[in-house]
Amino acid sequence: MKAYIIAIGDELLTGRTLDYNSHWIAKRLTGLGIEVRRIIVVPDDENEIISAIRDAVNKKDINIIITTGGLGPTPGDITLEAISKALNTKLKLNEKALRMIKDRYEELFKLGYVSSMEMNPSREKMALLPEGAIPFFNPIGVAPGVFLQVAEKKSIISLPGVPSEMMYLLEQILKYVHLESRDIFIKTREITIEVRDESTFAEILSDIRERFLGINIKSYPLGFGKRVFMRVIIIAKGKNPDELDELIQKSIEYLRKKVHETKDNL
Amino acid sequence: MKAYIIAIGDELLTGRTLDYNSHWIAKRLTGLGIEVRRIIVVPDDENEIISAIRDAVNKKDINIIITTGGLGPTPGDITLEAISKALNTKLKLNEKALRMIKDRYEELFKLGYVSSMEMNPSREKMALLPEGAIPFFNPIGVAPGVFLQVAEKKSIISLPGVPSEMMYLLEQILKYVHLESRDIFIKTREITIEVRDESTFAEILSDIRERFLGINIKSYPLGFGKRVFMRVIIIAKGKNPDELDELIQKSIEYLRKKVHETKDNL
Repeated sequence: MKAYIIAIGDELLTGRTLDYNSHWIAKRLTGLGIEVRRIIVVPDDENEIISAIRDAVNKKDINIIITTGGLGPTPGDITLEAISKALNTKLKLNEKALRMIKDRYEELFKLGYVSSMEMNPSREKMALLPEGAIPFFNPIGVAPGVFLQVAEKKSIISLPGVPSEMMYLLEQILKYVHLESRDIFIKTREITIEVRDESTFAEILSDIRERFLGINIKSYPLGFGKRVFMRVIIIAKGKNPDELDELIQKSIEYLRKKVHETKDNL
Repeated sequence: MKAYIIAIGDELLTGRTLDYNSHWIAKRLTGLGIEVRRIIVVPDDENEIISAIRDAVNKKDINIIITTGGLGPTPGDITLEAISKALNTKLKLNEKALRMIKDRYEELFKLGYVSSMEMNPSREKMALLPEGAIPFFNPIGVAPGVFLQVAEKKSIISLPGVPSEMMYLLEQILKYVHLESRDIFIKTREITIEVRDESTFAEILSDIRERFLGINIKSYPLGFGKRVFMRVIIIAKGKNPDELDELIQKSIEYLRKKVHETKDNL
């Protein structure tokens, strides 16, 4: 499974707001064995959103497209309209979504959080979904989350930009599409190892990549200093978690041995 | 002036590292009057980087493309190779860059931070730049920053992924291309205003957008509560800073008046 994340909002491109949402979603999907292939941040501009959605939909190997932002009642919230234009489908008043929105405004009115529980065009706008979309109740804000199957193995998940709403609705929709049932496991280990210099170490890593198929190994220097330490991340992906642990263990032992040998030579 | 930011690195897509670099660059460019149109995060995958670079280069209105990450000595650092492939140009050993890298390793060796000052293929790799590229000395890490003019009004700036190196080199290159000399000013004001509900307020904002051309107005609710407060951001862009201030002032006065009138009606 591969995913694209599309974050929508001018505030993310002016540097006003840090896009923590995409980071959160990337971490969550990675934990489920889903490979995030791209994060795209676009402004509240219809053509830009349409072009990002189309690119993602046209990528054959991308199964999940997650958008954040632009689901609210203001005229600047145009995500669902842009999605339906990108897909050449129609925006329709979704009765289930309308009910959810009405319920939320009733509740907010009873709590004294809004001055009226009457619907108006701005509020109704949040119930205009692309044809075939499934709304998910938002108990924190108002705008429902949206799940839309666009092809056999391709779907779009649209989430609000407010982090607490985004996080809640992401979990609900992941459960709905059974993405939390794992058939692929990802095991990760990180170690810190002292090396003599980064370039020589790079050659050892290349060697390991060739020797231990099925693992991905990366390294980051922990700053410069008299003693150079590298943070090494080993990632193994597969169906049998025990085998993954063993593979990681063996690659670490090999790495340590090689680095030790290199030190003697220097 | 319009810009794309392309952040390169698997660690940004697995949720291991938060992409604070793009946020920083977006804020810095916005302050210079440059509009960031898109942030794209791609993995350390040659085809993905090439496709992102090509997309950006082919966008007619994009003048500046800033990449971060993938300039180091390891085999995973492939940004410059991908850029030169995207542009159908050659990767060449840049003598100036080579000198910079040698100088850095000499210095790091004298400080006892690396075990040898000799060059090797990994270290030399950082001096392989696309034809016509201009290297910028990196006094914090090793890999030089890179400036490459690709057309009359289009250039690519490649920066290291380590934040301190990225920030330093960004400033150097911005100075070099005189982007810090402003001919367009951006003025921003933020106010907090109490409203009755977000939907009614949205209509007032639409009114202001039509009335005060040249300003951009956005709003964010500050959570739900018995009293609803909106954070309103007014952005004005233009050549005369005094006029911008006046325009912002007038739009705020109009906004406050309208919100006050609405309250009486509710």
